Amino acid sequence: MAVTAREIYLTRYPEGLPAPDSFVVKKRELPPPQEGEIAVRVVWMSVDPYMRGRMNPNVKSYIPPFSLEEPLDGGAVSQVIASRHKDFAIGDYVVGFNGGWRDHWVGKPEMFQKVDPAMAPLSTYLGVLGMPGLTAWAGISQILKPVEGDTMFVSGAAGAVGSIVCQIAKLKGCKVIASAGSEEKCQWLRDELGVDIALNYRDYKNSTELTKALAEHGPKGINCYFENVGGMHLEATLNVIAFGGRIALCGMISQYNNAKPEPGPYNLINLIGRGALMQGFIVSNYAHLALEFFSEMAPWVGAGKVKFRETVYDGLEAAPKAFLGLFSGENTGKAVIRVAPDKV
Amino acid sequence: MAVTAREIYLTRYPEGLPAPDSFVVKKRELPPPQEGEIAVRVVWMSVDPYMRGRMNPNVKSYIPPFSLEEPLDGGAVSQVIASRHKDFAIGDYVVGFNGGWRDHWVGKPEMFQKVDPAMAPLSTYLGVLGMPGLTAWAGISQILKPVEGDTMFVSGAAGAVGSIVCQIAKLKGCKVIASAGSEEKCQWLRDELGVDIALNYRDYKNSTELTKALAEHGPKGINCYFENVGGMHLEATLNVIAFGGRIALCGMISQYNNAKPEPGPYNLINLIGRGALMQGFIVSNYAHLALEFFSEMAPWVGAGKVKFRETVYDGLEAAPKAFLGLFSGENTGKAVIRVAPDKV
Repeated sequence: MAVTAREIYLTRYPEGLPAPDSFVVKKRELPPPQEGEIAVRVVWMSVDPYMRGRMNPNVKSYIPPFSLEEPLDGGAVSQVIASRHKDFAIGDYVVGFNGGWRDHWVGKPEMFQKVDPAMAPLSTYLGVLGMPGLTAWAGISQILKPVEGDTMFVSGAAGAVGSIVCQIAKLKGCKVIASAGSEEKCQWLRDELGVDIALNYRDYKNSTELTKALAEHGPKGINCYFENVGGMHLEATLNVIAFGGRIALCGMISQYNNAKPEPGPYNLINLIGRGALMQGFIVSNYAHLALEFFSEMAPWVGAGKVKFRETVYDGLEAAPKAFLGLFSGENTGKAVIRVAPDKV
Repeated sequence: MAVTAREIYLTRYPEGLPAPDSFVVKKRELPPPQEGEIAVRVVWMSVDPYMRGRMNPNVKSYIPPFSLEEPLDGGAVSQVIASRHKDFAIGDYVVGFNGGWRDHWVGKPEMFQKVDPAMAPLSTYLGVLGMPGLTAWAGISQILKPVEGDTMFVSGAAGAVGSIVCQIAKLKGCKVIASAGSEEKCQWLRDELGVDIALNYRDYKNSTELTKALAEHGPKGINCYFENVGGMHLEATLNVIAFGGRIALCGMISQYNNAKPEPGPYNLINLIGRGALMQGFIVSNYAHLALEFFSEMAPWVGAGKVKFRETVYDGLEAAPKAFLGLFSGENTGKAVIRVAPDKV
């Protein structure tokens, strides 16, 4: 069975923010699966901020840069259409770190999980029950370790990870101060997700102004900070970090499209006097906790204690637009692309 | 019994590096000790980098700024000359966080410890067996947690804290890369303290050059970094920090005399991809471990496994010079001032 895939390539390595013409769709006939491989049709694909890092050719990171000679790649939920792997049968739904940015994929299903479309909507395996959910849960449970009554600040709070962080923090008894980029997002955070304070960061010109707001709403200092944004947010938090405070460094999306790196915060030295911790992490550090995560998160989602929102884009060709929306603040909650209908 | 004390005051809050005339000695008649107080003659006093922070009037920190109306203060080893406290008798030697920057002191001996001049030279209770020793030990045992074969980088390595860090790291089986500010210091670090590599940081113009040296000598990356200096040292380390690396943020002496704060490192984001930790601390966070520290460190010092060097200044009037020497790199090991002979 030969399949023609549509695959998205980078046309060049972008400097600064990528543009729509940084991407191109190409067609390619896929080989049939070899022993140990599967062929899938992609149903949902994910765009995530970390992918921007892979678009820099010279950065040494935990995953290699994308090649211009191969399609982009990323997380996807797919359905098996041919299998030469004993664990996967035709019709199975799978979630994996490969298969995104295209509509068909053939390869070894390393780190793939089978998922049940009856248990939760398939797209949630890319969001609240997937990598962003594990990221939020692990940052809280493994790094921030809030105790009841702690004040937690969350930047990028309306994003795929941040919105889950806010809700877990509330379930753990924290006072939650959330930062997002529009009034509409702030309203959603307050009214739907139950955060105590939602700040529209566009109202604050610099870290001094944001510091004032944090000091006002967190008079005992910030015990926990879940960092998705960097820049002004980090500097303001370091001004008001509580003694023994913890910072989970998950992302710095404000920096990803800088052609030249920005300097770090002027007040990093505050970590010393406050005896505070800053721990960087990527979700794969905590892959071994995926089952523990799932067993805590799935019931919360099922009971409506953790809500989620998706910004859905239709069709593979919309993937670049969805990706660029991560940096312009277009998306609320998890951005996903419906590449094909769940069932054929 | 009335005692006239000589006490050192700040003449003004310094901007940038203090000057000799930032300090003045004044005489004052001390009141006799009240109930619960002791009077002491100061034998040894300490100058430490953290004191620079207390010379800024507006900085919120873990200890309040020095007042211009009162003498400076700090760690000292003293001998009791009058006591109205049940735990202290005339003739006892004590080490405490008060009594420095003067030759006599009267007050409540809070957090004072009695020390035995027969067990170790009195000045060591200000150094290897005192606050700098506990700082080094706690940063390693509580934050860096090296495992055998780890590469540890130590900045300010010839200083009071750094020189002890280097030796504990060797005892724990690390490869130690040390940075100091002169060839003479580097030679001492190599020949006497047994570090594997000693770098004279004045040979490196910027973080790029220092990064190259660290990559050459620590080809598997830096697992542990004991930070005393800040600036270029931190930025270079973040370029080569190993996956899962730990940074103990103890001091940033390169920043203390800046009238304007310097920006933080441009590559803080590396903490994310490397899953690395940065933990700030001050020694008082670990005061509860003082006995555990002492029981491990005293035998090491007794057996010559941890060596120490002191830069000794004679006479109270030399205290400002000793203090300024902390920032110019004049001192090797612990800087102490012999205010009076051990025995009268």
